[in-house]
Amino acid sequence: MTDRKPVDIVLPEVENPVFIEGYPGIGLVGHIAGNFLAKELGMEMIGYVESPFIPPMALILEGKPNPPLRFYGKDNLIVAVADVYVPPTLVNEIVRELVGYLKRTNAQKVVSMGGIGIGFRKEKMEVWGVGSRKELNEGLKEFGVKILQYGSIMGMSGRLLWEAGREGLSAYVLLGETFGDRPDPLAAANVIEVLKKLLGIELSTEPLVEEARAIEEQLRKMHEEMEKARRTAEKQYESIYL
Amino acid sequence: MTDRKPVDIVLPEVENPVFIEGYPGIGLVGHIAGNFLAKELGMEMIGYVESPFIPPMALILEGKPNPPLRFYGKDNLIVAVADVYVPPTLVNEIVRELVGYLKRTNAQKVVSMGGIGIGFRKEKMEVWGVGSRKELNEGLKEFGVKILQYGSIMGMSGRLLWEAGREGLSAYVLLGETFGDRPDPLAAANVIEVLKKLLGIELSTEPLVEEARAIEEQLRKMHEEMEKARRTAEKQYESIYL
Amino acid sequence: MTDRKPVDIVLPEVENPVFIEGYPGIGLVGHIAGNFLAKELGMEMIGYVESPFIPPMALILEGKPNPPLRFYGKDNLIVAVADVYVPPTLVNEIVRELVGYLKRTNAQKVVSMGGIGIGFRKEKMEVWGVGSRKELNEGLKEFGVKILQYGSIMGMSGRLLWEAGREGLSAYVLLGETFGDRPDPLAAANVIEVLKKLLGIELSTEPLVEEARAIEEQLRKMHEEMEKARRTAEKQYESIYL
Amino acid sequence: MTDRKPVDIVLPEVENPVFIEGYPGIGLVGHIAGNFLAKELGMEMIGYVESPFIPPMALILEGKPNPPLRFYGKDNLIVAVADVYVPPTLVNEIVRELVGYLKRTNAQKVVSMGGIGIGFRKEKMEVWGVGSRKELNEGLKEFGVKILQYGSIMGMSGRLLWEAGREGLSAYVLLGETFGDRPDPLAAANVIEVLKKLLGIELSTEPLVEEARAIEEQLRKMHEEMEKARRTAEKQYESIYL
Amino acid sequence: MTDRKPVDIVLPEVENPVFIEGYPGIGLVGHIAGNFLAKELGMEMIGYVESPFIPPMALILEGKPNPPLRFYGKDNLIVAVADVYVPPTLVNEIVRELVGYLKRTNAQKVVSMGGIGIGFRKEKMEVWGVGSRKELNEGLKEFGVKILQYGSIMGMSGRLLWEAGREGLSAYVLLGETFGDRPDPLAAANVIEVLKKLLGIELSTEPLVEEARAIEEQLRKMHEEMEKARRTAEKQYESIYL
Repeated sequence: MTDRKPVDIVLPEVENPVFIEGYPGIGLVGHIAGNFLAKELGMEMIGYVESPFIPPMALILEGKPNPPLRFYGKDNLIVAVADVYVPPTLVNEIVRELVGYLKRTNAQKVVSMGGIGIGFRKEKMEVWGVGSRKELNEGLKEFGVKILQYGSIMGMSGRLLWEAGREGLSAYVLLGETFGDRPDPLAAANVIEVLKKLLGIELSTEPLVEEARAIEEQLRKMHEEMEKARRTAEKQYESIYL
Repeated sequence: MTDRKPVDIVLPEVENPVFIEGYPGIGLVGHIAGNFLAKELGMEMIGYVESPFIPPMALILEGKPNPPLRFYGKDNLIVAVADVYVPPTLVNEIVRELVGYLKRTNAQKVVSMGGIGIGFRKEKMEVWGVGSRKELNEGLKEFGVKILQYGSIMGMSGRLLWEAGREGLSAYVLLGETFGDRPDPLAAANVIEVLKKLLGIELSTEPLVEEARAIEEQLRKMHEEMEKARRTAEKQYESIYL
Repeated sequence: MTDRKPVDIVLPEVENPVFIEGYPGIGLVGHIAGNFLAKELGMEMIGYVESPFIPPMALILEGKPNPPLRFYGKDNLIVAVADVYVPPTLVNEIVRELVGYLKRTNAQKVVSMGGIGIGFRKEKMEVWGVGSRKELNEGLKEFGVKILQYGSIMGMSGRLLWEAGREGLSAYVLLGETFGDRPDPLAAANVIEVLKKLLGIELSTEPLVEEARAIEEQLRKMHEEMEKARRTAEKQYESIYL
Repeated sequence: MTDRKPVDIVLPEVENPVFIEGYPGIGLVGHIAGNFLAKELGMEMIGYVESPFIPPMALILEGKPNPPLRFYGKDNLIVAVADVYVPPTLVNEIVRELVGYLKRTNAQKVVSMGGIGIGFRKEKMEVWGVGSRKELNEGLKEFGVKILQYGSIMGMSGRLLWEAGREGLSAYVLLGETFGDRPDPLAAANVIEVLKKLLGIELSTEPLVEEARAIEEQLRKMHEEMEKARRTAEKQYESIYL
Repeated sequence: MTDRKPVDIVLPEVENPVFIEGYPGIGLVGHIAGNFLAKELGMEMIGYVESPFIPPMALILEGKPNPPLRFYGKDNLIVAVADVYVPPTLVNEIVRELVGYLKRTNAQKVVSMGGIGIGFRKEKMEVWGVGSRKELNEGLKEFGVKILQYGSIMGMSGRLLWEAGREGLSAYVLLGETFGDRPDPLAAANVIEVLKKLLGIELSTEPLVEEARAIEEQLRKMHEEMEKARRTAEKQYESIYL
C-alpha cells in the first residue's frame, strides 16, 4: 500500500477539454446533474479513478459493471461522477492528479456543479456561482447567476476551483439553491440551465423537472394518506371515549 | 511493515484456469458454495493469500492447519475461500494481485458467487447475474439467470468483476436470492446449479438441499417448542388470575 | 500520500521579512488581528500552505477563491492566516518549513498574535508577551506589555516562538487578555496597538473597537429581550395562579 | 518508525532447537506453563523480541530487568513467554521472523501451548492438540491427546502452527481444557504432562497442582464468608421486620 | 512525515555523563525531582528532543521559551525533563536514540526517578529501586533502598533501565513511595536523598519538604473550612426543622 501513487487518473488525452464535475453533496445536486448530462448527451464511459483507498465495489448500469469514480466523455466534453463518498485526503489527491491532466491537455473550462442548502423554499430557486478569476464572474452574472462574494466551498468543488484557478485555468463552481433535506432534481435542472449558456450546449431539462414533480407528488400522497389515517384514528378515539 | 508488498498470492501457475470466488457475505451464500465445491469435487488446497494484515489464525480442517484465505485446485479449476472478514483496502490489494495472476495465466472464466438479500421468501428463489461484457449476459440468460441491470455489488465480487473485466477477462457475478437473516445452503445450491451449466461440470447439490431442510426442521422445532411453552404459560396465567 | 513532503510553503522570497502569524485560537484574537491587518494595510495574497492533510475547501473572499492557509504580503511584511483548525502534527511540519524560509530570507522579526483566556472582565485588558531571547522582553516592557514569566504557549505560536528563537531569529508572542467565551475584536485591537509600536507601523484600530461595541450592543439587546420575556411570563403566571 | 524492520528477534543460533511458545491467552494456560517450564528447568533468559510497537516497560524478576517478550534457553530447548498482550499485526511479524529463525536452525519441534475454554468443569479436563502434518496427530493420540479435527486457533499459536508447518517444520498446538474465567494452573499442568511425553523431558507438575488447590481454597473461603454474611444479613432483616 | 527519523536527540557530546531522567508519572515524583535538581544545582538547558510527534508548544520559564522535552546540563551531569505526556511508541524511539548517545559517550550512570503508588500513608515512606545488574542492587541496599524483586516498571523508566542495561551501562530506577492522588514533593525529596548518596552530590531537599508542608497545610485548611461549613449547615438545619 506504500510504493504506488495513492491515486491514478485513467483517462485518454482529450485536447482542450471542457471538464464538468458532479460528485455527491447536499441535495445530490451535482450527482444528479452529472449523471443526467452523461445520459442525455449520449456520453460514453472513457475513464476512471483508480485507488486502493476507494471502497471495493462495482456499479451495474444497463447490465454492465462500472467503477464508482468514473469519467464520461463525448467530443471534448468530460463529465466526472462518483457513486461513493470520497474522504478528504483522497479528494486532495484526486484534484492534484486531475489538475495535472487538465493543465497538460490545456482545458478550456472546468466546472463544478453542486448544491447550496438554504433550508426554505421560494418561488424561484437561484443558482449561485463563482469563478477562479474575477472577470469570470462577469460572464456568470450575464447568465443570471448570483455571485458568491463570501463563503466557503467544501470538498471536491472547493479544492478544484482553487487548484485549477491557481494553474491559470478558467474554473467555475455553480451551486443550485436547495432545501437540503432530499434529492433535488429541480436544483440540478437550474444548474444545468446555467451550464447550457456557459458552454453553449443544447439539451432539455424537462425530464429533471418531471422527476421533481414525481417526487413531490409522491410526498404529497404520502402526506395525504397520513392525514387521512390521523383523522380516522381521531374519529375512532372520539367514538370510543367521548 | 513497510517495504514488502501488502499482499502476496501464493499459487502455482495453472494454465487457462477457471477461477471461482466464494468469500463470506450475506447468507454466507458464496462461502457455503465455495467450500461445497472444493469438497464435492475432491479439490486440494494449492495456495493461499499471505499478508501481515490478515488476522493471525489457523483453521483446522480434518486435523490439519489451513490459512484463513486459501485456494483449492483440481485440474484447471481454482476455488478461493475465506474464513475471516477481509477489510476493504485489503480486498483491493488482493484483487489487484489476483487479476495480475489471472491475466498472466490467461484465465478462461472468473466467477464470483454470493447472495442478494430480498427480505422475504417465495416459491422459487432466483439467481441474479451479470457479466463483465454485455454479450456474457446473453449466455447467463440461457441458463435461467436474471440479469442485474442496475445496482451495486460491494466487496470482493464487485471489485473482481470490474478489474477482471477491465483486463479483458470473462468475469461473472452470480447472486442467489436469500432472505438474508441466516446461512442459506439452498441459495448456494441455486448458484451452483447455474455454475454447473456455465462451466459444464457435474455434481449433485442434493447435500446442500438436505442441509437446508435440516436447518428449517431445526428452526420449525424451535418455534413449536416456543409455541407450546407460550400456551402452557397462558393456561397457567388463566388458572391463576381468571 | 507518501513520497512527497507533507507540507509545502509556497511563498516568494521576501528579503528581511517581518513575519506575523494570526492562526485561530481562544477568542479568535490572532485570527481577527491577522485578517484586520491584511485588510487595513491593503495587503495582497502572495502565498499559501500546500498539503494533502489540509481539508479540501476554498474560501471565497470578494468573489475570489482562496486556500484556507494563506499568506498576505506588502513590501517586506508577511501575515499568515488560517480558516481551518490545523492538527498538531501539521503545525509542527508547517513551522519546520516556515522557519527554514524565515532563516533563509533573514527575517527581521517573527510575531505570533493570540489570546489568553482570563475568564473575567476588567477595566483594562492587558497584553502579555514574551520574546525568544530575554533582551527582547525589555523592548516589549517599554510598549506596556506584561512579560509572561511562566506558562505554556500551545500550538502554532508556541512552536514558532521556540523554533524561530532556536535559529537565532527575533521572535515574539503577543497574547491579548480575553474573557474567552466569544470572538473578541477588542483583544485583537489591544494586540495590534502593541504591534504598531513594535514594528513602527501606522493604522487605526477604531474599526475593531467599533466591532466590539456592536457585538456588546447586540448581546445587551438579547439580554434585555430575554429579561422582558421573563417578566411577562412571571406576570402571566401570577395572574393565573395567585 | 519507518525504515527499520518492525520486529527483530534477538536470539543466539541454537542448533536443532525444540521451541515452545507460551504467550498469554484464555485461562493464562500458555503463560503459566511457559513460565513454569523456564523456572523448573532452570533456564536462562537468552533472547527477546525487539520492536518499537511493544509497550515500553521492564519486567523485574529476582531483582533484574527483563523485556516483556523474551526467550528462555537451556541446551537446545527454547521457551518463549510474553507479559503483555501482543496486537495481531505484530503477531504476524513476530511469527514471520521466528519461523525464519527456526528454519535456519533446523528446529526439531515447535510447540504452542494454550487453553481451550469449555465453560464447565468435569472430572478429567482433557488436552486437545493438532500437528502441522497428519502423521504428527498419530503421535499425539498415543499421549492421550484428543485431536482437534475442526475449529480455529487464533493468535500466536494458530499462525505459528500454520507458518512453521508450511516451512516443513514439525509443529504442534496443545490446548488444555479450562473453564475460562480465571488463571488455571491445572490446565497448564495437564498441557505440561503431554509435553513431557512429547519431548521426553522430566519435571514434576505438582507445584502447579498445589497452586491450583490454593486458588480453589481461596475462592472457597471467599464464598463461605459471603454466604455467612448473607445469612447474618437475613437474620437481622427478620429480627427487624418480621 | 516519513523520510526523517521520528526522533532526534539534540545534545552536545558530554564525556562520561551521569544521566538522570525525570519524566512525568504517578505523584509527579520524577518530574518534581528532575526540575528541582536542575534548579538547585544551577544547571543550564543544553539540549532537547526534536520530533514531529511531540505536541506543538513552548514552555515559558523565567521569561524564556523552552521545548517540552529538554535536557539540563552542568559539568558531566545531564537531567532529562518533560512537560507533556509522551506516547508509548515515542518513548521507545527516544530511548533508542538516548541509549545510542549514552553508549557513545560512555555514560557512568543512568538513573530514572519516579514514584510508586501505595494508596496509603505511613510514618516513613520508602524508596524502592533496582539496577540493571544484580551487583548494582547491593550498592542501592547500602543507601537504604528497598530492592524491587518482582514487578513491572512502565514507560520511560522501564524501557531505559532495560535498554541501557542491555548495552552494558550501569542503570538504576529509583521509585519513591507515594499515596498516588496528588503531586508529592516529599516522595521526590526521598528519591533525591538516595540520589545524593548514589552520585556523591550535595544539595538540600529542605525546599521540597517545605513545599510538601505547604501543600498539606493548604489541604488541612480546606478540610477545616469544609468541616466548619458542614457544622454551620447542620445547626441551621436543626434550628429550622427540629
